Amino acid sequence: MTTQELVSQIKKKKSFLCIGLDVDLEKIPQHLLEKEDPIFEFNKAIIDATNHLAVAYKPNTAFYEAYGIKGWQALQKTVDYLNKNYPEIYTIADAKRGDIGNTSTRYAKAFFEDLNFDSITVAPYMGKDSVEPFLAFSEKHTILLALTSNEGAFDFQTKKVNEQELYKTVLETSKTWKNSENLMYVVGATKAEFFTEIRKIVPKSFLLVPGVGAQGGNLQEVCKYGLNENIGLLINSARGIIYASAEENFAETAAEKAVELQQQMETIIAEM
Amino acid sequence: MTTQELVSQIKKKKSFLCIGLDVDLEKIPQHLLEKEDPIFEFNKAIIDATNHLAVAYKPNTAFYEAYGIKGWQALQKTVDYLNKNYPEIYTIADAKRGDIGNTSTRYAKAFFEDLNFDSITVAPYMGKDSVEPFLAFSEKHTILLALTSNEGAFDFQTKKVNEQELYKTVLETSKTWKNSENLMYVVGATKAEFFTEIRKIVPKSFLLVPGVGAQGGNLQEVCKYGLNENIGLLINSARGIIYASAEENFAETAAEKAVELQQQMETIIAEM
Repeated sequence: MTTQELVSQIKKKKSFLCIGLDVDLEKIPQHLLEKEDPIFEFNKAIIDATNHLAVAYKPNTAFYEAYGIKGWQALQKTVDYLNKNYPEIYTIADAKRGDIGNTSTRYAKAFFEDLNFDSITVAPYMGKDSVEPFLAFSEKHTILLALTSNEGAFDFQTKKVNEQELYKTVLETSKTWKNSENLMYVVGATKAEFFTEIRKIVPKSFLLVPGVGAQGGNLQEVCKYGLNENIGLLINSARGIIYASAEENFAETAAEKAVELQQQMETIIAEM
Repeated sequence: MTTQELVSQIKKKKSFLCIGLDVDLEKIPQHLLEKEDPIFEFNKAIIDATNHLAVAYKPNTAFYEAYGIKGWQALQKTVDYLNKNYPEIYTIADAKRGDIGNTSTRYAKAFFEDLNFDSITVAPYMGKDSVEPFLAFSEKHTILLALTSNEGAFDFQTKKVNEQELYKTVLETSKTWKNSENLMYVVGATKAEFFTEIRKIVPKSFLLVPGVGAQGGNLQEVCKYGLNENIGLLINSARGIIYASAEENFAETAAEKAVELQQQMETIIAEM
């Protein structure tokens, strides 16, 4: 999917909500466990109930790998279901991959071609030749970890490298890579004040923002400093939506939580 | 497996060779493609022919993910085969994972419990709480990326952070994490001179060294600066061994290449 198609969808739905599909069999409604593929059934119900409110879905691969082969089958079925039934939806494999050149190419093919995701999250530590194989795919996005929403972000990401923080060095350096127009960045919502600095370096890029809700980030604050003329933000919420209820009507409850966020976003867009 | 068991195996076999199982269906002997699971058949033949020469095997997960469900099945069968038939062998999932706390726990369970690997490679960018969930597993090792063997290593890893290079900051910081005795580090062989500096910070840790052979690293140089009293090195070779021949007798040829490295290692150990 092109950036422009994503922007069109955002404007049409008046939403820049991304829903994290981080499926934990201990947290989903227990009646689903009787089904042949409880993970997929859960995702399908959430997607069917919320697709008009969200522009993107983001399964975190760790939750699927944890269930082995069955988990991978559920992941594949989920992205196939999205691509077939809701082709306008933007899909993100939250995989945080990254390896040397020929190996990154393998990961890129796995997620972009075989699974047919629109984008994947990638870790920057191994530098240019670990990321460019992902960037080589046109109409696909590579979402580079810049400033994450966890406590450990302060261990290295905010340390000064030649007078500026490492995450800023990552942002600036990545702009020089081939096909860098296919980059987006992960920026945690727990540090809204950082968005001003980030927007100076990447004014036009989309930022994927985890950490609104469960991790303490504030939607209004993030938008105040992070929005750009194309919106430029994808706000991810997982637990706050998908686990809002574990009753039979869990999908309806999830949609109610998603509406709350979508309506806040609609107001924010209207005030731009 | 404990560190001491690994050291015992090294001393017994007079080898600190790790063989990288990076299976590419375009490079393996073509007669294997007729088998039901060509990836596993290839690995099995390589393992059966080389297990007396190597102390560890390291499948890179990217090569398996690239083949989807079938790839994951082949990975699972490979590690099961190693654990059942050669329980003394040390297994490394070269997965370069890392995510926020509860998500890293998922990855740790997937690789340590379900797949039953002895160790996994992990990326440091997200800091302490992304790595400690792996370290919590006793008798398992977490192999942290420090200084990788690719060109992109110079983009961030060797940049100065508060007067010392980022990879040194990663090494020093990681020593303060809980259960840090379960850490090993990835250090690329293409930069042998760096080993002196690295050994000042982590004198006792095992280092996993890719890049000998195909990527240009030199075994003698690495050992000169990297060995410690427990050997402390696992030297990985993949392409130079597993793709030495694509004929019917590929496994024998692989063993010949492995013997060459093992004999060099035996000489180096004898001279210690």
